[in-house]
Amino acid sequence: MSQPKVTVLHGPNLNLLGTRQPEIYGYETLEDINKALSKTAFAAGWDIVCFQSNHEGEIIDAIHAARLDGTLAIIINPAAYTHTSVAILDALNAFEGKVIEVHLSNVHKRESFRHHSYVSLRADGVIAGLGTGGYQAALNLILKN
Amino acid sequence: MSQPKVTVLHGPNLNLLGTRQPEIYGYETLEDINKALSKTAFAAGWDIVCFQSNHEGEIIDAIHAARLDGTLAIIINPAAYTHTSVAILDALNAFEGKVIEVHLSNVHKRESFRHHSYVSLRADGVIAGLGTGGYQAALNLILKN
Amino acid sequence: MSQPKVTVLHGPNLNLLGTRQPEIYGYETLEDINKALSKTAFAAGWDIVCFQSNHEGEIIDAIHAARLDGTLAIIINPAAYTHTSVAILDALNAFEGKVIEVHLSNVHKRESFRHHSYVSLRADGVIAGLGTGGYQAALNLILKN
Amino acid sequence: MSQPKVTVLHGPNLNLLGTRQPEIYGYETLEDINKALSKTAFAAGWDIVCFQSNHEGEIIDAIHAARLDGTLAIIINPAAYTHTSVAILDALNAFEGKVIEVHLSNVHKRESFRHHSYVSLRADGVIAGLGTGGYQAALNLILKN
Amino acid sequence: MSQPKVTVLHGPNLNLLGTRQPEIYGYETLEDINKALSKTAFAAGWDIVCFQSNHEGEIIDAIHAARLDGTLAIIINPAAYTHTSVAILDALNAFEGKVIEVHLSNVHKRESFRHHSYVSLRADGVIAGLGTGGYQAALNLILKN
Amino acid sequence: MSQPKVTVLHGPNLNLLGTRQPEIYGYETLEDINKALSKTAFAAGWDIVCFQSNHEGEIIDAIHAARLDGTLAIIINPAAYTHTSVAILDALNAFEGKVIEVHLSNVHKRESFRHHSYVSLRADGVIAGLGTGGYQAALNLILKN
Amino acid sequence: MSQPKVTVLHGPNLNLLGTRQPEIYGYETLEDINKALSKTAFAAGWDIVCFQSNHEGEIIDAIHAARLDGTLAIIINPAAYTHTSVAILDALNAFEGKVIEVHLSNVHKRESFRHHSYVSLRADGVIAGLGTGGYQAALNLILKN
Amino acid sequence: MSQPKVTVLHGPNLNLLGTRQPEIYGYETLEDINKALSKTAFAAGWDIVCFQSNHEGEIIDAIHAARLDGTLAIIINPAAYTHTSVAILDALNAFEGKVIEVHLSNVHKRESFRHHSYVSLRADGVIAGLGTGGYQAALNLILKN
Amino acid sequence: MSQPKVTVLHGPNLNLLGTRQPEIYGYETLEDINKALSKTAFAAGWDIVCFQSNHEGEIIDAIHAARLDGTLAIIINPAAYTHTSVAILDALNAFEGKVIEVHLSNVHKRESFRHHSYVSLRADGVIAGLGTGGYQAALNLILKN
Amino acid sequence: MSQPKVTVLHGPNLNLLGTRQPEIYGYETLEDINKALSKTAFAAGWDIVCFQSNHEGEIIDAIHAARLDGTLAIIINPAAYTHTSVAILDALNAFEGKVIEVHLSNVHKRESFRHHSYVSLRADGVIAGLGTGGYQAALNLILKN
Amino acid sequence: MSQPKVTVLHGPNLNLLGTRQPEIYGYETLEDINKALSKTAFAAGWDIVCFQSNHEGEIIDAIHAARLDGTLAIIINPAAYTHTSVAILDALNAFEGKVIEVHLSNVHKRESFRHHSYVSLRADGVIAGLGTGGYQAALNLILKN
Amino acid sequence: MSQPKVTVLHGPNLNLLGTRQPEIYGYETLEDINKALSKTAFAAGWDIVCFQSNHEGEIIDAIHAARLDGTLAIIINPAAYTHTSVAILDALNAFEGKVIEVHLSNVHKRESFRHHSYVSLRADGVIAGLGTGGYQAALNLILKN
Repeated sequence: MSQPKVTVLHGPNLNLLGTRQPEIYGYETLEDINKALSKTAFAAGWDIVCFQSNHEGEIIDAIHAARLDGTLAIIINPAAYTHTSVAILDALNAFEGKVIEVHLSNVHKRESFRHHSYVSLRADGVIAGLGTGGYQAALNLILKN
Repeated sequence: MSQPKVTVLHGPNLNLLGTRQPEIYGYETLEDINKALSKTAFAAGWDIVCFQSNHEGEIIDAIHAARLDGTLAIIINPAAYTHTSVAILDALNAFEGKVIEVHLSNVHKRESFRHHSYVSLRADGVIAGLGTGGYQAALNLILKN
Repeated sequence: MSQPKVTVLHGPNLNLLGTRQPEIYGYETLEDINKALSKTAFAAGWDIVCFQSNHEGEIIDAIHAARLDGTLAIIINPAAYTHTSVAILDALNAFEGKVIEVHLSNVHKRESFRHHSYVSLRADGVIAGLGTGGYQAALNLILKN
Repeated sequence: MSQPKVTVLHGPNLNLLGTRQPEIYGYETLEDINKALSKTAFAAGWDIVCFQSNHEGEIIDAIHAARLDGTLAIIINPAAYTHTSVAILDALNAFEGKVIEVHLSNVHKRESFRHHSYVSLRADGVIAGLGTGGYQAALNLILKN
Repeated sequence: MSQPKVTVLHGPNLNLLGTRQPEIYGYETLEDINKALSKTAFAAGWDIVCFQSNHEGEIIDAIHAARLDGTLAIIINPAAYTHTSVAILDALNAFEGKVIEVHLSNVHKRESFRHHSYVSLRADGVIAGLGTGGYQAALNLILKN
Repeated sequence: MSQPKVTVLHGPNLNLLGTRQPEIYGYETLEDINKALSKTAFAAGWDIVCFQSNHEGEIIDAIHAARLDGTLAIIINPAAYTHTSVAILDALNAFEGKVIEVHLSNVHKRESFRHHSYVSLRADGVIAGLGTGGYQAALNLILKN
Repeated sequence: MSQPKVTVLHGPNLNLLGTRQPEIYGYETLEDINKALSKTAFAAGWDIVCFQSNHEGEIIDAIHAARLDGTLAIIINPAAYTHTSVAILDALNAFEGKVIEVHLSNVHKRESFRHHSYVSLRADGVIAGLGTGGYQAALNLILKN
Repeated sequence: MSQPKVTVLHGPNLNLLGTRQPEIYGYETLEDINKALSKTAFAAGWDIVCFQSNHEGEIIDAIHAARLDGTLAIIINPAAYTHTSVAILDALNAFEGKVIEVHLSNVHKRESFRHHSYVSLRADGVIAGLGTGGYQAALNLILKN
Repeated sequence: MSQPKVTVLHGPNLNLLGTRQPEIYGYETLEDINKALSKTAFAAGWDIVCFQSNHEGEIIDAIHAARLDGTLAIIINPAAYTHTSVAILDALNAFEGKVIEVHLSNVHKRESFRHHSYVSLRADGVIAGLGTGGYQAALNLILKN
Repeated sequence: MSQPKVTVLHGPNLNLLGTRQPEIYGYETLEDINKALSKTAFAAGWDIVCFQSNHEGEIIDAIHAARLDGTLAIIINPAAYTHTSVAILDALNAFEGKVIEVHLSNVHKRESFRHHSYVSLRADGVIAGLGTGGYQAALNLILKN
Repeated sequence: MSQPKVTVLHGPNLNLLGTRQPEIYGYETLEDINKALSKTAFAAGWDIVCFQSNHEGEIIDAIHAARLDGTLAIIINPAAYTHTSVAILDALNAFEGKVIEVHLSNVHKRESFRHHSYVSLRADGVIAGLGTGGYQAALNLILKN
Repeated sequence: MSQPKVTVLHGPNLNLLGTRQPEIYGYETLEDINKALSKTAFAAGWDIVCFQSNHEGEIIDAIHAARLDGTLAIIINPAAYTHTSVAILDALNAFEGKVIEVHLSNVHKRESFRHHSYVSLRADGVIAGLGTGGYQAALNLILKN
């Protein structure tokens, strides 16, 4: 019998993590984050898929894939697409599992156009401002349920 | 001498038609719709191109292609990009044929961010809320003129 | 047994069709449109009522009448009352059949106060910018269901 | 010597009361309401005029009539015209007696365009959400003063 | 050969002129105003039609009539419909002669919802705040051209 | 068996009634109002609790208390907290009985920030501008049901 | 005994009248307009002062001067300062005579920032869209009173 | 040497947890939540203070107290005060430790006035929609740092 | 005969003065300020009451008390309640003496939600940005009149 | 060694002080105010420059002059330019001394367009509604520092 | 035959260039800039006029002068008047040559009231954020055409 | 040692340059523009990369590439993505060189949704309305520094 699966999606520019303004975003790279999440998931007997793209369409494709590959929950950091992508919202609306939205920084302290999230209209939960700890918190909550 | 041609463009998430909330969106798949439209077009002596993409850029590319392949009219259901894509509007502005915008549901009854359409600023006609019948109505109107 | 019936309602100033700016609105008069719609309806075995008024109250009265005379669907071009009449919306809310809203021009290309429609909050479908073809498309969709 | 008089005005679509969605608006017809109000008024030695119209202009005419026929107070349920009619507001501004505005439902719980009332800018009192009891409360307050 | 004609239209509640708050609106009745305007028009060899209604639809009908009866210019005081009637705007858009909008008071000093005029989008000229002198000024300008 | 109970809550500054601008708010003190309401309630075989506070938190506490003390209906004049207190709205949302909101003056004629009521989002009915008669009307409606 | 006096103030860019886009603004120069107004004023036994400036401060100075030189009425075409000058509004607020605001074109048909007038908050009357006839109408109304 | 301390603050109406709409908010009472958090804190060698109030002022007082009692981090669920209390924001601005804001439900899916949070302008992190798991996630993140 | 009295009210978080960010707010404590103000008042033969609270209700109570204890003028620094408390505005509206609003910092340079003051709608004068000198200036102006 | 200097700038229409609506603005002329301020300044061993202009450009020039003539502080009542002059704001931004903005009346009680001040974005302090006492308070605060 | 001419207009406060915050605006004075531009213009066989004023009216006068003195193009840095002067826009509308708007800094990064430019509604081109290089780029483009 | 490098990025639909509405956008193709820019760059001893895409994600990828390939400056014409892409803004925020934003037309004269640019929040300079000359001006400024 197959294991339960969680899909982790990282939006545009997150491939730069660890290399851009590390004093703000930290020295962890995306690979570091994915490795740590994978370790936690595997320890709990879950499969995990981690994917990053700068292309809105590829993120939609990945959400569609998650509908069919046994994914029970999506953790998504939509980055800039948080504020502009109705298409990602619609893709998530077609996914029936749990969705947790994660932001590294507290977006409410930044420019006003970052205060609105299309993804929050679908997300079950939202975590912001807790750095990479936000991903871990999201994963823990999923693994526990 | 080549036949007149119509291009039908389907925006993001429409590849899920028939598999997502069929009680709302119906049991017809995108393939069913395309087949029915093709049958009507062929019967009237027209060529037809049907294309779906979750990628904004690919839809723009397809509109550019239609400028050069003899397409006389575009039927477009921009889905979520309706509300966010100035780039698709600009691509359509560069197309000189007829443009009919189709939405399966009545977008005016949904969230307020779905009430505004960039594509309507260019479309000759707009049809919403008539389900897949909207595509047929659009095609009939094009074939008649 | 009585035939199914469709009611077609034309709002203010539409009595001028064919006589005002025909280069924009076309040379067809309202009578021409009504005759063509009647021919289609009769051929399909339906009764049809066509009514125009410049008076908001008379349009409301006509919608009330349609609740009692066996009308299964209303096709309405509310013209200027589209944007200002909550009372017509409320009358339509009390009608239980299908409602299709038709506009001759693409209202989204006109002044911004024409972008909002109270009637769309109730209409099952909306067709705009397809000229008198919009009435025919609406009627065809009703006759088919 | 003539009796004091109260005029009760019902706006558009209220002629449908009791026949439309009775589970929401109740099973009382407008005639039932008017009869009950008349009984109360007569018992208190007052004349009463009850009038309904779907026509904004007729409601204005009725308000003008009330200026001259000895009416001391108007109870008005402007229904949809509440939100759109500056003309009814102006007519009421020309009436010197007491004006009480009544709504069957609590309009503040409905669509946002129903939250604004032109009539409230003139009304001495406003009663909403108390069903037909609102008319009785309004009448009682008038009869007492 | 027929004389040139001017049509003067008075909107809702203006039938009350001279009887309501004369200290503000003056002691002249609508009949007084119409008589004075008629005298001026006749002296200049023009026909004149004066019409008042509280019904939006009747004002539209009157504008339609003016399209066919030889009217060269319309003087209109739309009163409350100034701010709410797209239908009157559309009717005036279908009239090809000169249109002058008149308001007795300076609407810009009153409530903010009176600052916007749909009719001004069509009117050639607008006169406000000059009392009944505004009608005379409008008529003089028409007779001179 | 215990009697049915109604709770009457008065918001900030209402303790000044009768002592502040009596020419506007009347000469009745809050005690007078409470006595009159109590008399009516007792006559109908109901218990009544009357409470005033300038403290938002105490009003919330009182609503919580009403959930447990057998109160069937709350009459609340939230005064200034009408416009600013989401917390009182939330407390009322947790109360399952009937809620009637009362304002002494017609708030719609006052500053624009007084036009919005958080409490109206929960209230079953709203009465404004009827002075202390508004409390009596609210009570009568509760006692009758 | 001195004659009554009227002051005519022309705002920025009006010195270009007759030389700029005469097909729109006409071939009359500001001097032509002033001469015609002077002729009318003198014929009625009034003094007249005509002044144009591109400087907001000079227009304010001229209004101050009018307070002391026996001016009974000001006719002002504030041109672009209509929309931006609170200082001219304040200067006019300190003038106790009649003020008539004149615009050559119908500002309501132009860009939206031209729809608001600070001067209208003080003006007794406003005339727009009647070309230079607007000045004459304003002057006639002043001379008559 | 004293232990590190965390203060947990619960805003208005949260005392009702477990007793109000448990199908939405769950069957856990506030006491249950506090006990679970205390157990976690104690296990990690931390002191913990848990406090609930319906009074804005008492929450401010509690934040002031936390400045002096060795509290290193505040977990706050401001409930309704999230959206209305600048005073709580200012109190938190005077606290120098870590602040994590927790909401049981995803406030972005509720009424629009719940989308804005004053507290988020100060909070280091925000967690919403994860039920009581949000408190645990917040506490874990604090204990780890 | 009793001395004239002035009441000084300090809003939420002002009890922290001198201990929070002294480089911004200065090293003076609230007690220092009150002592200095008292010294000035006593020297001028006035009584003075100084009161601080974090509770909106207690500030309202204090304003009510000032109505009855001979207070001729209130100096109030409403701090965060400046922007959110209609209830304090209403309490001040019931006070008949002079009211001067004081802010230590220039609120117009801070977040936009701090630019609006309910208290300014009642205050006779407003002083902002002058630090504790603002209190002294307010007091001097009161003592002089 | 030269004395410290303060520059006092009065904006448009303030030259009318004492002659316009003295019941509102008082009987003191601008000359009276300047004399009183000069007396205070001289007594404290300061130089003072007082300047009024109706011309925005002259006020800018005066601020530029103050940069070079030893002025340590500017007291400015920008009058109507408060609300419209970005240019005066920019000039003040180039001045490095203290700036105190003074308004005779409480602008927050007047029309809404008077609630915004460009000058407040630069001013160190703002005093409004204290009449001519506001100038004295500003001067005292400058002389003391 | 006369040479072609370019007019360079500098708005308010630009006379301070080089003396105010040189670390931001650079050490070049306005004279330096004008000299460099003149050198370039002369080398290309063009006449050049350079003018700075803090007075809106003088800038308008200078634009009017350019209409008559053979100026083919205007380079204008309207500084603060960019955002507030409809009058300068109107003056430029009356100029028939090329207009290039230059800003030293990127206004889009500054306060939001600096994001709107009336002058851009007329300018053929806009250059912002390139420092004094923006003037040279504008001049080069003019000289080349 | 490698040469300095500049990257030129062209957004969606710019591949159509020279083929679409050449009377507006000119007859130069994108290839023409790139060749001309390359010639200028090479002459100055710089490398140049030119890239066009209709895909938002590919433009982001290209900006990321520029971070690592020695690019000192980016010239970007984001076309339609100017107004909608926060993701491109974020990518540019991660680039440390100079960024100049170029638009062929003056976007401020077009539809209002084209007036806002996310890219301008990062760009050092912005050039609009100068046609292909804008690219050259941008390049010249980069080569010079």
